[in-house]
Amino acid sequence: MSECIFDYQRAQGPKVVAIGGGTGLSTMLRGLKSHTKNLTAVVTVADDGGGSGMLREDLGMPPPGDIRHCMEALANAEPVMQQLLTYRFPEGSGKLTGQSFGNLILAALNGISGTFDEAVSKMSQVLAITGRVLPVTCENVVLEATFENGTKVQGESKICDFKKAQDCRIQSICLLPEHPKALPEALRAIGEADLILLGPGSLYTSVIPNLLVDGISDAVRAAKAIKIYICNIMTQDGETEGMTASEHVKALLDHSGPGLIDLCLCNSAPVRPGLVERYREEDAVPIVVDKEAIEARGVELVPRPLASETLTCARHSFTRLSAAVMDLYRERANTRIF
Amino acid sequence: MSECIFDYQRAQGPKVVAIGGGTGLSTMLRGLKSHTKNLTAVVTVADDGGGSGMLREDLGMPPPGDIRHCMEALANAEPVMQQLLTYRFPEGSGKLTGQSFGNLILAALNGISGTFDEAVSKMSQVLAITGRVLPVTCENVVLEATFENGTKVQGESKICDFKKAQDCRIQSICLLPEHPKALPEALRAIGEADLILLGPGSLYTSVIPNLLVDGISDAVRAAKAIKIYICNIMTQDGETEGMTASEHVKALLDHSGPGLIDLCLCNSAPVRPGLVERYREEDAVPIVVDKEAIEARGVELVPRPLASETLTCARHSFTRLSAAVMDLYRERANTRIF
Repeated sequence: MSECIFDYQRAQGPKVVAIGGGTGLSTMLRGLKSHTKNLTAVVTVADDGGGSGMLREDLGMPPPGDIRHCMEALANAEPVMQQLLTYRFPEGSGKLTGQSFGNLILAALNGISGTFDEAVSKMSQVLAITGRVLPVTCENVVLEATFENGTKVQGESKICDFKKAQDCRIQSICLLPEHPKALPEALRAIGEADLILLGPGSLYTSVIPNLLVDGISDAVRAAKAIKIYICNIMTQDGETEGMTASEHVKALLDHSGPGLIDLCLCNSAPVRPGLVERYREEDAVPIVVDKEAIEARGVELVPRPLASETLTCARHSFTRLSAAVMDLYRERANTRIF
Repeated sequence: MSECIFDYQRAQGPKVVAIGGGTGLSTMLRGLKSHTKNLTAVVTVADDGGGSGMLREDLGMPPPGDIRHCMEALANAEPVMQQLLTYRFPEGSGKLTGQSFGNLILAALNGISGTFDEAVSKMSQVLAITGRVLPVTCENVVLEATFENGTKVQGESKICDFKKAQDCRIQSICLLPEHPKALPEALRAIGEADLILLGPGSLYTSVIPNLLVDGISDAVRAAKAIKIYICNIMTQDGETEGMTASEHVKALLDHSGPGLIDLCLCNSAPVRPGLVERYREEDAVPIVVDKEAIEARGVELVPRPLASETLTCARHSFTRLSAAVMDLYRERANTRIF
């Protein structure tokens, strides 16, 4: 490698791949974009509710919502384009009520493109995003959850409704059809990464679905990167109710095989008392971090103060989270031979 | 005026205001953009059919279609954005079937803006258009046609349906509510223009509606600009069936008062025989150019070969039309004192 290319890559920052979906992944990306330009988001496409679900049903396209969240986090477009991206047609907008304009951009781009990943790539170009956003697969996949009482529920939105309505947790999930093909660029990005991040985000509906796509778990396991699972701050009703951090790790490994991750990054900052009460009403509590049980699974626990001190919900601070992740990367990269 | 500013303005080209709507106006603009950067389109907002009508009804916004056509003609955005602008959701797209993505951009911008003209201005910015596009009014106006048999029909799309179904021509049109307020920038642009163009386009549904907006006719009449009416090549069934060029001029003046225009630019190139037959099936024929009758109305006739030799319909060639208009401007501007 010539010195010039090496300097360029160093100036761009380490190659980071963040895998997930929903708000968790976009929080991660929002923080990371100021640390590295070598950023790839690998995003789940199993959503079927709200505006995404409508477009999925009407246009037969993969759901755009999770991709759009990532674009919002990484976009460097002019202010008007940024406003457009986050605009949602309000109540009383007839057929467009509740639809996100960002979703419609991706729907139109999907119409003028040969494939969904080409549409995502064009959207990245229009929004001048930092890094890349890749759908984990271009196949039309449906999530199926098996609950602890044996009930099987298909479709992400139905799973969410079911888990809220029943006093029953998800036991495992799978994709239908099973073994959809991963996007080759996603596998390549994982293979070349210096750092791979899983989460934060809904364990069963945002993080694990990516690991069920054919080749993704194996690629993560085979990669030379440092691999970190970022555990959520709070449990989620019906999805991870009552689960400790080690049980999150167990679920992750149960769905992908052992040896997937090196580190488990957990929040060590206290969640503000007022917030704890509010979440308790939704059957959500701060996740208990059980160090021994995590390490018994061959995963090192790294506790860091990650909870936001300003947000009105118990979520990661994107600056704290990205700084912690990059510090960990620098610290560990120096002790490893690549 | 300093020499520097003068040179800048000369480099930008003469100040041209093109008034109209529909395909006619966008053809005009497509040609003009290579001749002058000082270009203002003043556009009718009385449409209520198709995707425009849906958005008008669902969102209570002015119809975006005519504005979008102009944006398409003037946009200098990157290729992907250009493709997006002209994309239309195909059959089988559920609630989005037939909707133009360009319309949706304007709808979303209208949602994030204080006024419709601000939304149009933001769209111009996103698409890096040459010149400016201005809605003639921001008020919610409905077109009412009175047919020769006395029937009154409200709404542009209903007027079009009625005129196709009946063997009856439009006699006059008005706006409801009457005397909507013109956009102040439109009046200012007209007042400062070197050249004002009316048409080509549907006489009663694209050109005249602009002249019924309060202040527009007076501003055109008072302007020092050279004023040209560009007559269509063919008559339109029910709208201008059987009308000669002088009758087009008469209708224009009947709706706006005398002394509105200096010149009437008509096509002198023959319409290809195959095309004439095809149009005859739709009750449309080449417009008869009756020089004496035009000049009896105080308007000079200028015949020029304007019909496209390549299009599969009898329309103006945008290069011929814009070149003819600019030649006329240069020729006449030298003989006038401003």
